[in-house]
Amino acid sequence: MASTIALDCMGGDHGVSVTVAAAARFLLRNQQAQLILVGQEAAIASQLGPQGLRGHPRVRVVHAEQVVGMDEAPASALRGKRQSSMRSAINLVHSGEAGACVSAGNTGALMAMARFVLKTLPGVERPAIASWVPTLRGRSCVLDLGANVDCQPLHLLQFGIMGSALFSAVDGNPRPSVGLLNIGEEEIKGNEVVKQAGELLKASALNYFGNVEGDDIYKGTTDVVVCDGFVGNIFLKSSEGLARMLASYLREEFQRNLFTRLSALAALPVIKAFRHRVDPRRYNGASLLGLRGVVVKSHGSADSHALEMAMSRAWNEASGGLLQQIADRLQGTVTATPGAS
Amino acid sequence: MASTIALDCMGGDHGVSVTVAAAARFLLRNQQAQLILVGQEAAIASQLGPQGLRGHPRVRVVHAEQVVGMDEAPASALRGKRQSSMRSAINLVHSGEAGACVSAGNTGALMAMARFVLKTLPGVERPAIASWVPTLRGRSCVLDLGANVDCQPLHLLQFGIMGSALFSAVDGNPRPSVGLLNIGEEEIKGNEVVKQAGELLKASALNYFGNVEGDDIYKGTTDVVVCDGFVGNIFLKSSEGLARMLASYLREEFQRNLFTRLSALAALPVIKAFRHRVDPRRYNGASLLGLRGVVVKSHGSADSHALEMAMSRAWNEASGGLLQQIADRLQGTVTATPGAS
Repeated sequence: MASTIALDCMGGDHGVSVTVAAAARFLLRNQQAQLILVGQEAAIASQLGPQGLRGHPRVRVVHAEQVVGMDEAPASALRGKRQSSMRSAINLVHSGEAGACVSAGNTGALMAMARFVLKTLPGVERPAIASWVPTLRGRSCVLDLGANVDCQPLHLLQFGIMGSALFSAVDGNPRPSVGLLNIGEEEIKGNEVVKQAGELLKASALNYFGNVEGDDIYKGTTDVVVCDGFVGNIFLKSSEGLARMLASYLREEFQRNLFTRLSALAALPVIKAFRHRVDPRRYNGASLLGLRGVVVKSHGSADSHALEMAMSRAWNEASGGLLQQIADRLQGTVTATPGAS
Repeated sequence: MASTIALDCMGGDHGVSVTVAAAARFLLRNQQAQLILVGQEAAIASQLGPQGLRGHPRVRVVHAEQVVGMDEAPASALRGKRQSSMRSAINLVHSGEAGACVSAGNTGALMAMARFVLKTLPGVERPAIASWVPTLRGRSCVLDLGANVDCQPLHLLQFGIMGSALFSAVDGNPRPSVGLLNIGEEEIKGNEVVKQAGELLKASALNYFGNVEGDDIYKGTTDVVVCDGFVGNIFLKSSEGLARMLASYLREEFQRNLFTRLSALAALPVIKAFRHRVDPRRYNGASLLGLRGVVVKSHGSADSHALEMAMSRAWNEASGGLLQQIADRLQGTVTATPGAS
């Protein structure tokens, strides 16, 4: 059912104490939602009481014996972990019992299993991973973030289609703008793959803006930003690194001496408001796009607040009709660019 | 002469008022340095008085009639602007009258002219653009930042060699660590070019660390970070965009109401110290590496402080024996990896 989310309770760095706490937060905030908690029954049961979920009418537990390790090779998890919480959560999406699943586990294993169990949507050559980033104008969706390191122009076109569908499903805007990440605004810029992708995007039915540069992402120049998984991964991780470095510098400056500590006290409400605004937990939840089912990956280190955000993301995607949005666009765009490859 | 810097006074968004002011600052701080100011004589002369440089014993003006436009195509500048200040500054390096040149003009034109006039060092296949970024541990040098969008493994190896030489010339460390920017630490990660580049770097005489990820750049995991120009450009520009967005958020939070404005007042010394630490002007100056001469590109929008930093960078490179450092390493590394390609 679309109103049901399957949660892999064993994934992530913190295990059931965090996942069940996130489940409780999510149920409180989403009164229409139902949850299936997937994992080792005894471990989950031990947390239900403390989180006030014992006998909860909208919660069901599905036992899964195995756990996929955070560093396990995707191929080995795919072969050897058929009884895992991750696999079982995906199975629930496949059987239609859940409208979406969420896991904070190993990304590679999640993508491999989801691809194997759910298969790709008709016409999708490569699933992609999309995430949201805050911008000066709101938020944008960037993809691919690491699922595909070597891309052909057609793949980038399809990322544009899927990103546009994701933006529509979650945000409501029926024609989000799509930008192609490049090293200059001019059409002649970039490598061959990007140049050809630009041609395909221009000929598509998407609301294609043209090339965007690295600084356009945080300016919010377009709603969707398309790039290959190598570039996207470097972008995302270097941004995380920069944000962490700046936060660390700011902390150091405020702790320098008694005077700066006092001024930190005075500025505390401002610092808190600022921190809230750029809190990476608010942007937790990467979407695995192009599959016949909604799958959201939470950061492994997510706390219960961050994991709740990823669950809300899955909920919004399922209720926003993400899969239909992608299918509609794939049809529309394929018609608009016959023979594109 | 190595102690002489040729400054393209016409490049950049602000023209001679900024370039001559930067020259004055630079001469004050570097008592051994001599400057050749290149550009339209009348325009430069009009600024010499106000900047206290008229008749200065370490300043000489070389007239150049033409100016390369900021948006001019490199090929057209190469053909049509032989009398430009940019070209003349490079000529002074070629003739040996200057040990380095600095321009805040059009990057593409600067690279094209420098490559044409100076030629590449023996064994260098592709010149690269390197820049410094602040890190949690100090600063690191990242290259390529946009000169080469399609790279072969050998190019990435050579970027490692040139980056290592740059770090040694400026920082003094004879064996800086070199990391290869990738989407995972494991050797099996990344695209084919990066994997093969990893093999070449491992077999080289460099102090090769292995793969580094996006967040390692700002952690300062290695002294030098190697990537292709497409990835490097996206990294650099998205970092600029993120820093600008965070600064804008912080400003907004401090201006929200009377109370937050007062707390901004209290926190002013801290904010100033923080701003100084991450001031992009301190990191102005990208090095064009692999040429038979030292060429530094300043940001087009640089003010006199930022341009002075770029001039100091050129000065440090010339006096640190950058070209010899690159040549030595190229020989050493080529010996260590016979047949590498």
